[in-house]
Amino acid sequence: MNAEFVNPFLQALQNVLSMMAQMELKPGKPQLKRDEYARGDVSGIIGMVGPKVKGSFSISFEENLACEIMHKMLGEMPESIDDEVCDMVGEITNMVTGGAKKTLGESGYEFDMATPIVVSGKDHTISHRSEGPRIIMPFSHLAGKAYIEICFDKISEA
Amino acid sequence: MNAEFVNPFLQALQNVLSMMAQMELKPGKPQLKRDEYARGDVSGIIGMVGPKVKGSFSISFEENLACEIMHKMLGEMPESIDDEVCDMVGEITNMVTGGAKKTLGESGYEFDMATPIVVSGKDHTISHRSEGPRIIMPFSHLAGKAYIEICFDKISEA
Repeated sequence: MNAEFVNPFLQALQNVLSMMAQMELKPGKPQLKRDEYARGDVSGIIGMVGPKVKGSFSISFEENLACEIMHKMLGEMPESIDDEVCDMVGEITNMVTGGAKKTLGESGYEFDMATPIVVSGKDHTISHRSEGPRIIMPFSHLAGKAYIEICFDKISEA
Repeated sequence: MNAEFVNPFLQALQNVLSMMAQMELKPGKPQLKRDEYARGDVSGIIGMVGPKVKGSFSISFEENLACEIMHKMLGEMPESIDDEVCDMVGEITNMVTGGAKKTLGESGYEFDMATPIVVSGKDHTISHRSEGPRIIMPFSHLAGKAYIEICFDKISEA
């Protein structure tokens, strides 16, 4: 897995946040290490399955950053991660993966998306279990950190 | 979504735990409510995509129950949720979904599985975001509780 797979998610995330919340997250260095975990207080997770590949995508936010995105979108600052924040994280997950799906489909890597799941809980870790490589990419903002994690396996079926 | 969808997961979970750990989890009453959340300390999550349906499956364990399953499988009791316990939860997620996939495929509901994700963090909640109904089912054991949560959407594409 290389930049060809990662950039569509990175770009989609930046588009979605700039469009929905007029916010810019600063991307850090992607990590290929197997002992790094994405970490946050609220995460959106989605599975991807196509004829040639299967995989999963997650995006994790620190509480303060998730609340700030909500604030920028709706004008009101939530006090903590409530149901509306979880809805928003699910929606961001769908939109980022949908954006990447379009770009990757045009490059011949078609996949369909499963339904998103939102995890909420102080300082949880996310770990993609896969035979293939997985990439973690940190993002920073004054309000807090975010991580995306992507893994893709080749499908090998009998 | 009805028993036809839920029972294959229920049965697969009971088969897997009886086979791997000689343990029996007692199933509680399935809930269809939208305001119930699955809750645990370690969860396995996987996406499912087929020609007619898409969805997601999760299984959440309380720490003590996850450690007890590990204990029964390997003979050693882990002190907390470590990387081996997370591996085991990822494996259980794969095996349960694989078992249900086989049964549901025979009923005409074919799907492929994405790659599993394991979430670790004290007392997190899992919330499947979907247009369709979602079902939560609690399980109990002397060592602790577990929850499975399943949702399936019909695929509607232009």
